[in-house]
Amino acid sequence: MANEVKEITSRDVNFAQWYTDVVKKADLVDYSSIKGSMIIRPYGYAIWENMQKILDAEFKKTNHENVQMPMFIPESLLNVEKEHVAGFAPEVAWVTYGGNEKLEERVCVRPTSEVLFCEHFKKIIKSYRDLPLLYNQWCTIVRWEKTTRPFLRSREILWQEGHTMHASEEEAREETLRMLKIYENFQRNVLAIPVIVGKKTDKEKFAGAVESYTLEAMMYDGVALQNGTTHYFGNGFAKAFGIEYLNRENKLVTPYQTSWGVTTRMIGAIIMTHGDDNGLVLPPNIAPYKTIIIPIGQNDEVMAKVDEIHEKLLKADITSKLDLSDKTPGFKFAEAEVKGYPIRIEVGMRDLANDLVTLVRRDTLEKRQVKLENVVEEVVNLLQEIQTNLYDRALKRRDSMIYEAHDYDEFREIATTKNGFIKTNWCGDVACENKIKDDFGMKSRCLIENEEVTGNCVCCGRKGKHRIYFGRQY
Amino acid sequence: MANEVKEITSRDVNFAQWYTDVVKKADLVDYSSIKGSMIIRPYGYAIWENMQKILDAEFKKTNHENVQMPMFIPESLLNVEKEHVAGFAPEVAWVTYGGNEKLEERVCVRPTSEVLFCEHFKKIIKSYRDLPLLYNQWCTIVRWEKTTRPFLRSREILWQEGHTMHASEEEAREETLRMLKIYENFQRNVLAIPVIVGKKTDKEKFAGAVESYTLEAMMYDGVALQNGTTHYFGNGFAKAFGIEYLNRENKLVTPYQTSWGVTTRMIGAIIMTHGDDNGLVLPPNIAPYKTIIIPIGQNDEVMAKVDEIHEKLLKADITSKLDLSDKTPGFKFAEAEVKGYPIRIEVGMRDLANDLVTLVRRDTLEKRQVKLENVVEEVVNLLQEIQTNLYDRALKRRDSMIYEAHDYDEFREIATTKNGFIKTNWCGDVACENKIKDDFGMKSRCLIENEEVTGNCVCCGRKGKHRIYFGRQY
Repeated sequence: MANEVKEITSRDVNFAQWYTDVVKKADLVDYSSIKGSMIIRPYGYAIWENMQKILDAEFKKTNHENVQMPMFIPESLLNVEKEHVAGFAPEVAWVTYGGNEKLEERVCVRPTSEVLFCEHFKKIIKSYRDLPLLYNQWCTIVRWEKTTRPFLRSREILWQEGHTMHASEEEAREETLRMLKIYENFQRNVLAIPVIVGKKTDKEKFAGAVESYTLEAMMYDGVALQNGTTHYFGNGFAKAFGIEYLNRENKLVTPYQTSWGVTTRMIGAIIMTHGDDNGLVLPPNIAPYKTIIIPIGQNDEVMAKVDEIHEKLLKADITSKLDLSDKTPGFKFAEAEVKGYPIRIEVGMRDLANDLVTLVRRDTLEKRQVKLENVVEEVVNLLQEIQTNLYDRALKRRDSMIYEAHDYDEFREIATTKNGFIKTNWCGDVACENKIKDDFGMKSRCLIENEEVTGNCVCCGRKGKHRIYFGRQY
Repeated sequence: MANEVKEITSRDVNFAQWYTDVVKKADLVDYSSIKGSMIIRPYGYAIWENMQKILDAEFKKTNHENVQMPMFIPESLLNVEKEHVAGFAPEVAWVTYGGNEKLEERVCVRPTSEVLFCEHFKKIIKSYRDLPLLYNQWCTIVRWEKTTRPFLRSREILWQEGHTMHASEEEAREETLRMLKIYENFQRNVLAIPVIVGKKTDKEKFAGAVESYTLEAMMYDGVALQNGTTHYFGNGFAKAFGIEYLNRENKLVTPYQTSWGVTTRMIGAIIMTHGDDNGLVLPPNIAPYKTIIIPIGQNDEVMAKVDEIHEKLLKADITSKLDLSDKTPGFKFAEAEVKGYPIRIEVGMRDLANDLVTLVRRDTLEKRQVKLENVVEEVVNLLQEIQTNLYDRALKRRDSMIYEAHDYDEFREIATTKNGFIKTNWCGDVACENKIKDDFGMKSRCLIENEEVTGNCVCCGRKGKHRIYFGRQY
């Protein structure tokens, strides 16, 4: 096996090192001299572009419009909503000088844009005719984190943030759940990531929200990744900012608000859900290239065939990479595995003599020879198989790592010997949530809506109020 | 006429106020409490999204890949290339605190990303096989300007910046001109803006470049807008950063570099090239909606027809807005004019009785009745006519505002009595360039490559070396 691959640490030996190896070896990111910031290289950025394209189309289908707010927030504006500023002030980057001049008021780089949208909404919402106002923004935000890891936790985050205003609480609540569903479908059907969807506890919700919903994915190592959130704000921000409009009865009333976002963190989730010891494994529906075509031997017949196959696939809208570099086939195979192309198409004289080419699926590394004339059809079918298999495999693994705890001893036993989520009953008291976090480093993931609470709180033994997941997190 | 329109200042009375009125009334931007930053509203952002879509496809067709660099530059990194830091340091925003902690080294928000790309290139360029490296980045940059105007000069700028590395000077120079040509075609064919394309003088070139090329547009008031630039860097940055690679002869050599960019400033150029006293006029090839359909009277037949027309246009890939709000037709007409939809389609009972609808073209406000059954074909043809007319009209106006000056008296006469560009001869001495700037506030726009120099320098009377344009600028 080529050198490239051998340098990837086994994921079962050291998962953190495996992750770092994969993001580097697959050319997704590079480091720079700016601590906590990463360079997203072309192959990584192409994944983000695909995410943007698919999600943006969904947002537009549901009548959302894109806007662009300033990237700076003056300190006084950040201070308007008290819970919000308390949540974000400790980790914002402060600009204090413009050129050689000290600013009269310092401004921070947006850690999120609620206050900027609210200030704007106050100016443009006058009448019920202006509602609902459905905005989205694609941008970069900054949170000055101490410890960082590519895609998972960095000082700069590429994301989208939706911000909407509604005439009624009911409509705003519907929007919060509609966008949650769009995220869920995207992660399941495109990223092949099974997600647990539910409401956050009060302790874990977004600073300033009435309710926060989350998409919780479980990584290969059993650790949770919060892979997107949607928030219902009620009219707390609207009141703090004095946003009012004339309703149909000509009365001044306050509107209801939501916000929702996903980030490049989803790329980290793909890596840690599907990747293996050979490197990245990309679900076909998000892969920048769905196949990579590798000639074996440089003779004219082989070269003519790889061109022909490349053309045919492009015509069928299957993005493919043709590797014509002067590396050896063995090196190219290994590189194709590291970079996670869903299908590798090997084209060599021996196969061609029988009108065959070889397809190697990345998820199982299984090889199959197919008729040259059927190559497009075979690729289409195999891509679908891979997409389905990745989801099923991830779901099975995740479900095998969810454990039920009926009392604190059982909770302790699971928390200290197993990786994964713990499903249990909870009284609703933040004291129990805090105790579990202090004892085991596990935070509540989300409440479970559709299961009846039959037992007592796993922590204090009082009457259970909620079914809930706990887990360690990235 | 509706109130909306009446509030636009005449462009011949006060062009600056007209501009401000149009960007506000057409819902392109809003102001915020962050001085020098603007909010780009959905209608303005949709224009930028169209620009991005078209240009990004051109960049990808020419094998450029998108990446994302950090947004911060540590002070020591900015300082590596001396000319460059001198050009940008006076106007960067400095981050000095992360949360409550003072940073050990302050970092600025990128005013442009040459140094970030160079640091990365040094790590990833090892061999001739790694070249050419053709990168592009869509992002926001910050320049702490004192006086700002929406789209034209603001503290935050949305742009794209291409950064490429090449094995030879020749190839890098070709790239500089290739991208200039892509910009030129885009501005001419899509934005309908005639541009003068040429090399900047040494005084006006980008900080650190060997040569800068520019696209100079002339606004309605005769003032120049630099509407994009491409730069050939030679290997100055590469040497400063120690970027070297092994060439085919296995020798360590230094590569050659380019960069190039266009910004949301192009939206300002559209406004000031095509707009009129009724508001914005959008070229069909960049308009978010190519037509707006307005029902006259709310009866069932009219409503059925507007739906039918809307459907037909969408099927023909002609994005259209259907205005079903409860405003009066007169108000809607005025609003459609302010927002510059290329064609307004009026659908009313009187026309329908004769199987007709009325098309009103925004560029001339001319009306024509067309057969309902031919509406798609008529719209397609009219859009083409409008696109062509806008370009021709702008070109004619621009050419009528270019004056030749043969000596300094003539230069003075033109500079003090006319708006527009002055075409003349120049000795190549920066002293003359400076004198013209001091005397008349006019900077050199660009050198003219294909005209023979027949006269003496317009300023000092010594032998002329270059044909050149001078003009005031935004």
